[in-house]
Amino acid sequence: MPAADPLLPDLPADATVADAGEFPLIGALASLFEQGEHVLVGPGDDAAVLRVRTGHVVVSTDLVVEGRHFRRDWASAEDVGHRAAAQNLSDVNAMGGRAHSLTVGLAAPADLPVAWALGFARGFAAECAQVGASVVGGDLTRSDQLVVAVTVLGACTEAPVLRSGAAPGDVLALAGRQGWAAGGLTVLGRGFRSPRALVEAYRRPEPPYDAGPAAARAGATAMVDVSDGLLAEAGHLAAASGVAIDVRTDALEVAEPLHAVGAALGADPVSFVLAGGDDHALLATFPDAASLPPGWRAVGSVGEGSGVTVDGASHEGPTGWTHF
Amino acid sequence: MPAADPLLPDLPADATVADAGEFPLIGALASLFEQGEHVLVGPGDDAAVLRVRTGHVVVSTDLVVEGRHFRRDWASAEDVGHRAAAQNLSDVNAMGGRAHSLTVGLAAPADLPVAWALGFARGFAAECAQVGASVVGGDLTRSDQLVVAVTVLGACTEAPVLRSGAAPGDVLALAGRQGWAAGGLTVLGRGFRSPRALVEAYRRPEPPYDAGPAAARAGATAMVDVSDGLLAEAGHLAAASGVAIDVRTDALEVAEPLHAVGAALGADPVSFVLAGGDDHALLATFPDAASLPPGWRAVGSVGEGSGVTVDGASHEGPTGWTHF
Repeated sequence: MPAADPLLPDLPADATVADAGEFPLIGALASLFEQGEHVLVGPGDDAAVLRVRTGHVVVSTDLVVEGRHFRRDWASAEDVGHRAAAQNLSDVNAMGGRAHSLTVGLAAPADLPVAWALGFARGFAAECAQVGASVVGGDLTRSDQLVVAVTVLGACTEAPVLRSGAAPGDVLALAGRQGWAAGGLTVLGRGFRSPRALVEAYRRPEPPYDAGPAAARAGATAMVDVSDGLLAEAGHLAAASGVAIDVRTDALEVAEPLHAVGAALGADPVSFVLAGGDDHALLATFPDAASLPPGWRAVGSVGEGSGVTVDGASHEGPTGWTHF
Repeated sequence: MPAADPLLPDLPADATVADAGEFPLIGALASLFEQGEHVLVGPGDDAAVLRVRTGHVVVSTDLVVEGRHFRRDWASAEDVGHRAAAQNLSDVNAMGGRAHSLTVGLAAPADLPVAWALGFARGFAAECAQVGASVVGGDLTRSDQLVVAVTVLGACTEAPVLRSGAAPGDVLALAGRQGWAAGGLTVLGRGFRSPRALVEAYRRPEPPYDAGPAAARAGATAMVDVSDGLLAEAGHLAAASGVAIDVRTDALEVAEPLHAVGAALGADPVSFVLAGGDDHALLATFPDAASLPPGWRAVGSVGEGSGVTVDGASHEGPTGWTHF
């Protein structure tokens, strides 16, 4: 029988995390995480210690729950690792910063395949490597339900871009793919595995990691990452800034495969773009259209008042994802 | 009917987190968390931003799982909050540092009482206030099993004290209560609620938050917090330092109620001290007995070799807690 993993050559392919044991598994997991030069103390002690030269740290945390945020039959362990990392890296991106360090906690059933745990860690580490961030610590414990807890630390080179700085007259702009992951999730939910591009976008989002810092440098007045739906996040931005936001549907890019899915399901493909999350696009406001950096496109406007409209009218239909 | 909580006066006492709704509940939770002066951006944006003047950050993360680390019928929501915070604050303590900021993620079933969630947050905030730390962010999501994910950030005034610095000839020393929580957990497991002092020690540990920084100032060579059992943690320290450790039972304080429990259950009360965790005592090594700061007591010695002995002999019986 082949081994569960080259890192644990004595374990058979179907070995569980309980078979591996806590400390051998932690050792194997930790060996997958390369440490950057800023890591003074890495995994293995009571805490990690990081050098911080910037005078500040940006921090955010997110939970990822099996059956709620992912299904093991819809995405590989590596995919889930990529996604769990991406949604946290995106929170720093949305402040105009860049992540440098993460911790990851894994609460896992005893019968979780050890190959899944290591695959998850490989995907997680690979996503972090895209921005040069290190996984500096973690926790492993037993649970009935598989839960991943991630905390990300990062830094900004400019002043952090908050949700609260949008002003009437600003231009609303979007960076990154939007609606793709929602389309992928929808077809998976109907039992299909295509269009492939959408399913892959759901499994491994590609957040625009350069767009956040670029927006901060360009003077973005407010920014949020689109994790729960474009209109929902626009609503958060409008509420925090005390402004009204209008989204123009003719300015939204509707990816070709979304048209195909919309036609097959009898749905308006624009709805994926308006209500979809999980791509981790960025939504920001800028003082004027001329200040948009590369990768950003104008999709609406900011005015006096409150709330979000679509093409100047109130929107009927879902705006995003609700957790309870 | 009385309200679930003064913060949510329109909800009845038996309201669930699903009744409260995600954003009202997050608003109520966030209002419980006071922000220190170092918090430049607190809860409510994509990420928090903290001022860091020390040039470094200490970071650790821990998961707390219902049914595994706590039972709602054995401890109040406030107790679970205290405990979840304490075990994380303790990880920074064990580096010789002090925590300044925490994030907390709550994965909760839809039928979790909103009063539980707010009670948990109050206990969590109260424990953090003991060291002056702020809860700067969090996440709330739905799950089948109640899981709490905490990440703590802190700073050291001296060089961080690692697990790996113990040398032959060092004195092994302990700070804080040890064995109390294990005694409390044992009687709860047998269906008893007394001795009260032990049950309370299990519900709300009292980590010696001043002892970690004091040990660092006094030149401690290695340190670990006793979360999984005194002998188990001594073993981690011995392995990381490449030394042998001997624990002297005649130097261990065995609290009076532990004698009572031992007599009632026919168990050696010293076993609670040797194998118990959850008090979050600190175990450290110092160059000599004269360097022990107040609150620390010598409990053994460091020698050449490897492994842990008790009174010079190998120990039969449990050494601590295993997660898988």
